[in-house]
Amino acid sequence: MSRDAEHPLRDDAALVPAPAEDLEDLALGDDYALNPDFVALVVDAADRGDAERLRELLAALHPADVADLMGFLSAADREEVMAHLDPEALAEILAEIEPEIREDLLERMPSATLVRALGEMDSDDAVDLVEDLEADKRAQVLAALPDVDRAAIETSLAYEDETAGRLMQREVASAPQFWTVGQALDHFLASGEEMPELFFDVYVVDPSHRPLGGVPVSRLLRHDRDTPLARIMEPLTEIPVGMDQEEAAYIFNKYHLISAPVVEPGGRLVGQLTVDDIVGVIREEGEEDILALAGVSDVGRDASLAGAVRSRLPWLVLNLGTAALASSVIGAFQGAIAQVITLAILMPIVSSLGGNAGTQTLAVAVRALSSRELNAANSARIIGREVLTGLLNGTVLALLMAGAVLVLFQDTRLALTVALAIVANFLVAALAGISAPIILDRLGRDPAVSSSVLVTFATDFMGFLALLGIASLILL
Amino acid sequence: MSRDAEHPLRDDAALVPAPAEDLEDLALGDDYALNPDFVALVVDAADRGDAERLRELLAALHPADVADLMGFLSAADREEVMAHLDPEALAEILAEIEPEIREDLLERMPSATLVRALGEMDSDDAVDLVEDLEADKRAQVLAALPDVDRAAIETSLAYEDETAGRLMQREVASAPQFWTVGQALDHFLASGEEMPELFFDVYVVDPSHRPLGGVPVSRLLRHDRDTPLARIMEPLTEIPVGMDQEEAAYIFNKYHLISAPVVEPGGRLVGQLTVDDIVGVIREEGEEDILALAGVSDVGRDASLAGAVRSRLPWLVLNLGTAALASSVIGAFQGAIAQVITLAILMPIVSSLGGNAGTQTLAVAVRALSSRELNAANSARIIGREVLTGLLNGTVLALLMAGAVLVLFQDTRLALTVALAIVANFLVAALAGISAPIILDRLGRDPAVSSSVLVTFATDFMGFLALLGIASLILL
Repeated sequence: MSRDAEHPLRDDAALVPAPAEDLEDLALGDDYALNPDFVALVVDAADRGDAERLRELLAALHPADVADLMGFLSAADREEVMAHLDPEALAEILAEIEPEIREDLLERMPSATLVRALGEMDSDDAVDLVEDLEADKRAQVLAALPDVDRAAIETSLAYEDETAGRLMQREVASAPQFWTVGQALDHFLASGEEMPELFFDVYVVDPSHRPLGGVPVSRLLRHDRDTPLARIMEPLTEIPVGMDQEEAAYIFNKYHLISAPVVEPGGRLVGQLTVDDIVGVIREEGEEDILALAGVSDVGRDASLAGAVRSRLPWLVLNLGTAALASSVIGAFQGAIAQVITLAILMPIVSSLGGNAGTQTLAVAVRALSSRELNAANSARIIGREVLTGLLNGTVLALLMAGAVLVLFQDTRLALTVALAIVANFLVAALAGISAPIILDRLGRDPAVSSSVLVTFATDFMGFLALLGIASLILL
Repeated sequence: MSRDAEHPLRDDAALVPAPAEDLEDLALGDDYALNPDFVALVVDAADRGDAERLRELLAALHPADVADLMGFLSAADREEVMAHLDPEALAEILAEIEPEIREDLLERMPSATLVRALGEMDSDDAVDLVEDLEADKRAQVLAALPDVDRAAIETSLAYEDETAGRLMQREVASAPQFWTVGQALDHFLASGEEMPELFFDVYVVDPSHRPLGGVPVSRLLRHDRDTPLARIMEPLTEIPVGMDQEEAAYIFNKYHLISAPVVEPGGRLVGQLTVDDIVGVIREEGEEDILALAGVSDVGRDASLAGAVRSRLPWLVLNLGTAALASSVIGAFQGAIAQVITLAILMPIVSSLGGNAGTQTLAVAVRALSSRELNAANSARIIGREVLTGLLNGTVLALLMAGAVLVLFQDTRLALTVALAIVANFLVAALAGISAPIILDRLGRDPAVSSSVLVTFATDFMGFLALLGIASLILL
């Protein structure tokens, strides 16, 4: 299993069949990315239509790696590869693959193959896939599914996107409250399809199928067969079916959950969330914050040129507007600049420093809001800390800058002007950086989206206004 | 369990004892944050030294919420509360609590209490805690621990920070390769302390204790007692003990792992990572990227004023240097500005637009690098996409800006100057935004750290140079 071992194949030998053990070593590089040599072997086998070789190569890969592999293949090679996967493997790969490629594959794939793959999927992955089908094909595929599966998928699709209902899988391991450990074990041994492929907690339910408590599977194993489940169950954190997935992720993280029951408004158990789905949500959430702070809208995971333009141009146009507005301040002080041209040099420094300080505060605030470390109870203290931090940092930079101006231009009043402007702008930066995200959050908006524009505008505007305004008072 | 129910207590009734059920409803608000009314009840009980009431209140809380509660209490009230927790609860709370408060609590807590709490902890949490003790107390506590526990903690402390070895817990559920399902079940039922509190996979090991495969616990339950483990085990992804925790998080996410065996260089099983530890790593990783991109250094989770200044001032001073360097370009073109004062107004707009476009590209690149969607195989394609996106967006903004300049200043050559400068700066923004993080990554540096400074410098410098340079050629 060692992926660090130097693989024995050299480039010139890359097309010579290797035994299965070596193929596994060859497949992935040290960074767990696919090895280009291995990809070359697959392309070669696909081009030659060598079915046996292809199966051998694919057997060396985890489905997640086969999904990655698709990204390196031509459309024709992809079809060749997909044709050699059994429905179970196909199901796993379709659940993993990049959305762009998936859409393309789904379009080309016969409905019958899709129906077989769907039969192998947990309900959450099946819903994801059906959602991506075009209307015609979706109707075809749904019609060909067994009634139970179709009903399950249609129910899930009725929940809003990014809610627990959409993310959950419907299969759960549950047991009536009066069962013993032994009865539960016998039941799990006997039951088949309606059980999840993997499960981590057994939900103990009342006669109306409302969860009363949970028993981690490993705890089940540590009690005698005649122990009543009700005696070893723990309190559960229930997730309402309509809860936003980010809220659910917060709860999973806070309480270190591995799985949690999802309940309908009446309290009936309808499914479960598991931590592996939540890991995906947490990753997405962090990525969305990074992109939103930089002014990149979420347009799905579309990596095309058109997608890139669409997700960025609106923010740039907005930025053009705010930059023009901030610069209008300069227009008002043209006379001052004409008299002291040095102001044109110092101006961008003051606004740039303020912008950076504001961005720092903003990033800290957005992070603290999304991890709920910043809340009603401590916001006054944190605002105070940010303002003080801004004033302290601003004073240090004002002194450095004033010193530099004195040395370069031998002008005390100019030095004083710059120093005062920097401190004033740091104060604005701190106030805007902390209050913009807090206000957006209180208004129920995502604090990462659009707060950058507000903060940059505030610090640009104030940077120009403070420097040129103070200059007009002191210098002229 | 409904947390949405309006709780029956009003402010004026807040100090009247309520039945246990209602306390649970009262404890948390809709956003899963502690209810101020509930905190007031705790403070009141602690101040009065009402032990019974305190125990009742604490019983309504999950340990993670008790940990949050500590943040709202005075040092005296904290001690009062801690005194009423049994070692098991104390262990869980110490593992959850904010680092600042934890240090304070650990200092005040008698060694004997600490030793009892450590006895209840999984090894990963125990190591975390011992690490935080001051040298004297650490020696005392370690000396008082049973030999086995002390050895385990000392071994873990020998692994580097942020590696799998430090993050792992040493307790695992393992079974020899020749065992059957029934033998494993009997063993787990009989065994006590050396087993993890919770486990999700049973590792099947050879006589040298090297993992051969894994059996998810729920799968164990679905096979007859006489099934050999070797027949139902699946291949494992082994985590080397020295692997960086971010690398481990990547692997967990990619392969949807719930737990994974950690192995020594010889391949011997020494512990396991579980997904709940990984959730923490993934959150941290996203947060670190956000802060690093905004120029906030990681100084631990220190929320003090001194910490805030220390984590931000160095980047601001660096920014002062680069801003001054970029502005020196303006100094070189003072003559041009003196002749066409409008250039001073347009200058910040050109540099600000470029800065924003560069930041967008940078955020996309950092995100793609950290999720490994950007790699050697596709970097050429992605660089191409970024450059094209920059040119397209730049052209749109150049046209808008040129139009505005024509309307406001009726000067065709000035409009042309601005338009050309914007397109040139967008090209630089795209190139800097994509290449800075890629180059830092290739050099083995964190691409989120310091790339912002590089990109902002490039777009400021180019913004000023392009506008003023082109103006000197066309206008003067």
